[in-house]
Amino acid sequence: MKNYKVGIIRVLTTDNEDELLSHQKILNEFFKEFELQTKSIPNQHNGIYNNETLNKAIPKIIKIAKEWEEELDGIIISCSEDPAVQELKKILKIPVVGAGHSAASLSINYGKKVGIIGIEKEAPLAYLKILKDSYLAYEKPKNINNTNDLRTKEGKIAVINSAKRLKNKGSDVITFACTGLSTVKAYELLEEISIPIVDGVIAEGTIILNMLIERSLRMK
Amino acid sequence: MKNYKVGIIRVLTTDNEDELLSHQKILNEFFKEFELQTKSIPNQHNGIYNNETLNKAIPKIIKIAKEWEEELDGIIISCSEDPAVQELKKILKIPVVGAGHSAASLSINYGKKVGIIGIEKEAPLAYLKILKDSYLAYEKPKNINNTNDLRTKEGKIAVINSAKRLKNKGSDVITFACTGLSTVKAYELLEEISIPIVDGVIAEGTIILNMLIERSLRMK
Repeated sequence: MKNYKVGIIRVLTTDNEDELLSHQKILNEFFKEFELQTKSIPNQHNGIYNNETLNKAIPKIIKIAKEWEEELDGIIISCSEDPAVQELKKILKIPVVGAGHSAASLSINYGKKVGIIGIEKEAPLAYLKILKDSYLAYEKPKNINNTNDLRTKEGKIAVINSAKRLKNKGSDVITFACTGLSTVKAYELLEEISIPIVDGVIAEGTIILNMLIERSLRMK
Repeated sequence: MKNYKVGIIRVLTTDNEDELLSHQKILNEFFKEFELQTKSIPNQHNGIYNNETLNKAIPKIIKIAKEWEEELDGIIISCSEDPAVQELKKILKIPVVGAGHSAASLSINYGKKVGIIGIEKEAPLAYLKILKDSYLAYEKPKNINNTNDLRTKEGKIAVINSAKRLKNKGSDVITFACTGLSTVKAYELLEEISIPIVDGVIAEGTIILNMLIERSLRMK
């Protein structure tokens, strides 16, 4: 059986090796088909959290992906905003996915009233386009303005409170719209919520695996 | 890393071991996380191909799944009609998926104009509900009335012709709405079509893996 070489592009600049590899470690724990490597974009220590930081990140991601493509079978842009994903689908010959479209498309397998937790002011449009009438409600945890805010004790409590509100409103599944929630393993905080949680990093791993298999099948 | 025990329920009765295990073999070839076993429902040698055969199959599937649940981490109903899946989601404590919902939800990661190939007269409603405005067209290959018809040379040519018509109409992805197309490895016939093919058996494997990981994450 073939292993797929998959590159992960992080949209958060960091010198900390543990931090840099946090998504790679999650994927390594649950998927056996990948040989993973990670790179991060330069000069964005707070990642992507609004339109300005999104637009700043896109050319950096495209540059890394283009230079890296030759060594890889697939590329994951490990961010729920799917930055540069549409652009790269046109440029690259290998499959490319982001966490956002992946998580949204998987959500509908779990429930019909999807609650979303993210760090931007409003629910990402890409999620709403996919979920349509399966979308129920959005929560931005209190005082969380970028991915680093999720690391604090207060940040974690705010995430739990958001999840509880979504469940109380009738959500039968909660989908993350920020991969910073994967980095802090927010799914472990939500055990007591006892409804399915669609994690962005697991979602992007799931979708790139499906795409890599699809290519193997067709190009045999 | 954990392996998941997954049961495959085939909706086609067969005494032929190769035939019985055909979907298991496909999943074994591409996914490393599963320990797979297969059972088939009794007395339906032509499988499911209309409402009558669907309704006949449902109680048989529920009986097998209930008796089997204790030994398994997850169950795949390997049919694009998703027979008994909604019922079993309410009854079983473990994840259960069918090929139909899985394939439809994955399609939207590949394209915006989804063409569907199936063996029923019309496109399955479950697919249309998920695809909404991403649905483009449906094809029932000529003279194919049940899954066994797909095995003949004429059947295979009819599938290729349907795929060509869907591509000519503007489909940017083709999704299968019959797992009999997986059994005959129709994706290998469609290499020259050169647009992505969403296969039902690969799709159900992808979605059950996502669900099994989701449970592992949350119930650690």
